[in-house]
Amino acid sequence: MSTLSEPLVPVLAVVGIGLIGGSFAAALRRAGQVGRVLGVGRSQASIDHAQALGLIDEAVTLEQAAQRADLVLLATPVGAMGPALRSMAPYLSPHVLVTDAGSTKADVADMARDILGERCAQFVPGHPIAGSEMTGPQAADALLFQGRNVILTPFDQTPASMRAWLTKVWEVCGARVIAMNPATHDRALASVSHVPHFLAAAYMAQVSRASNADLRLSLAGTGFRDFTRIAAGSPEVWRDIFLSNREAVLQEIEQFGVVLEDLRQTLEHADAHALEEVLEQAALARRFWGSRSGLT
Amino acid sequence: MSTLSEPLVPVLAVVGIGLIGGSFAAALRRAGQVGRVLGVGRSQASIDHAQALGLIDEAVTLEQAAQRADLVLLATPVGAMGPALRSMAPYLSPHVLVTDAGSTKADVADMARDILGERCAQFVPGHPIAGSEMTGPQAADALLFQGRNVILTPFDQTPASMRAWLTKVWEVCGARVIAMNPATHDRALASVSHVPHFLAAAYMAQVSRASNADLRLSLAGTGFRDFTRIAAGSPEVWRDIFLSNREAVLQEIEQFGVVLEDLRQTLEHADAHALEEVLEQAALARRFWGSRSGLT
Repeated sequence: MSTLSEPLVPVLAVVGIGLIGGSFAAALRRAGQVGRVLGVGRSQASIDHAQALGLIDEAVTLEQAAQRADLVLLATPVGAMGPALRSMAPYLSPHVLVTDAGSTKADVADMARDILGERCAQFVPGHPIAGSEMTGPQAADALLFQGRNVILTPFDQTPASMRAWLTKVWEVCGARVIAMNPATHDRALASVSHVPHFLAAAYMAQVSRASNADLRLSLAGTGFRDFTRIAAGSPEVWRDIFLSNREAVLQEIEQFGVVLEDLRQTLEHADAHALEEVLEQAALARRFWGSRSGLT
Repeated sequence: MSTLSEPLVPVLAVVGIGLIGGSFAAALRRAGQVGRVLGVGRSQASIDHAQALGLIDEAVTLEQAAQRADLVLLATPVGAMGPALRSMAPYLSPHVLVTDAGSTKADVADMARDILGERCAQFVPGHPIAGSEMTGPQAADALLFQGRNVILTPFDQTPASMRAWLTKVWEVCGARVIAMNPATHDRALASVSHVPHFLAAAYMAQVSRASNADLRLSLAGTGFRDFTRIAAGSPEVWRDIFLSNREAVLQEIEQFGVVLEDLRQTLEHADAHALEEVLEQAALARRFWGSRSGLT
């Protein structure tokens, strides 16, 4: 029976105890809202590490996690979520809520439907928009989600009580929760996350292939540094993100290409007025966003 | 007569006392290597401001600056340098060295040759690769050039002693000095500075024009923040930079377009291997640069 002093999440299981999984456990622990944390890791070393850092109380199997947890967070790369969910499916009791932290949502929703069938009501796809260039349990940070957005894309069948509970769980981690459908999420993220990464990678590849790349790079300053920072991200992770959100990313790249070509023509024609107009629009939009985003 | 205790620059004149001009004066002052700082400002308000901040000792006219200074730094936007130099030309004594801090160098070199003729030997075009999103004398920082590159593109006629002196002046400000020809500078900067700005602006314009721009922007995170930071820069300043380095920028945009289209095709064909290969090349190049650049 629930009492006032019982934590929001009596038993949490985290599958994949890296930056996101570890930070989620740490944030709930910091809020005093988790009883016991079970961890499923890829290797004994990462489990030992997470345990030494106090992120998890106990290492378990996927079967044990499915049987014992109240809430399961899948925090592996998206490609590894299907196999993990498939292993857990036979053992999931109906009261368990499963969620994930993947960067794309339509593919995760499809996977949950495929594997769980009607029971997909107890799977709420999620995406905490927070991260870091660091990885692994040692990068876990109880404040990672403070003031950040978490998107949830629940199925229509998911009970209101489950949605409300998961919303509350993220809120006690400091996050702001927004619900939308998976396609809307994936199109918006293609625009503001995946395309910047795609462009930064293409740009970085182009510069590094130049015959005088060393000279160029020795003259690069802080603008270059910030513009290309995301290009250093994990090639495997980003390959999977691009492939799983392929259509939306291609569509956005096409629309970017139209604007780029227009702007290129203003420069080719040395049309100072039209060139400045676009630069002005971009600068105003960026400054306005900067003043509202709360991201320092 | 020079003594051991005489500063490297007995009299400095700064034309345009903003971020760069003010920081240059402050850096020389901090090093104890400047005697008197004369300032030429755009308005009485900016002169008063620079004087109140202790950046300049005295406000002067261009004519006075040309007559009294040992070193003149033109730190106005590139477009304003021609008129300033033209006003100073009749009064420049042969021992005065004039330099500038513009982001493009072929156009500045051409201007110096046009205005000064054979006396262009005493004009050494320069580009300190340092900056900030802040502007004006209040943004001046004596440490702005610490560890940063300064490019000089001297004419063949410039005496070795003048080159060595100006090199030393930048070095006491904490900078590393590299000499090259103006065209090499402009092509390299087109690649690592101007094109990133061009792409960030085109991208920001595209996102802000979308019908659901508000939703998109509410989901933007730290990757977006860093990738677009430069798009907030001054539209007027960047319009001038693009126009004055037009050919090199257009050439680089074309080469970027080829790499982008190749990468786009790997995604269109869902060619995971080829996609990852480019992402890997970009990530390695960026990480290697990051470890060497000294930019935190």
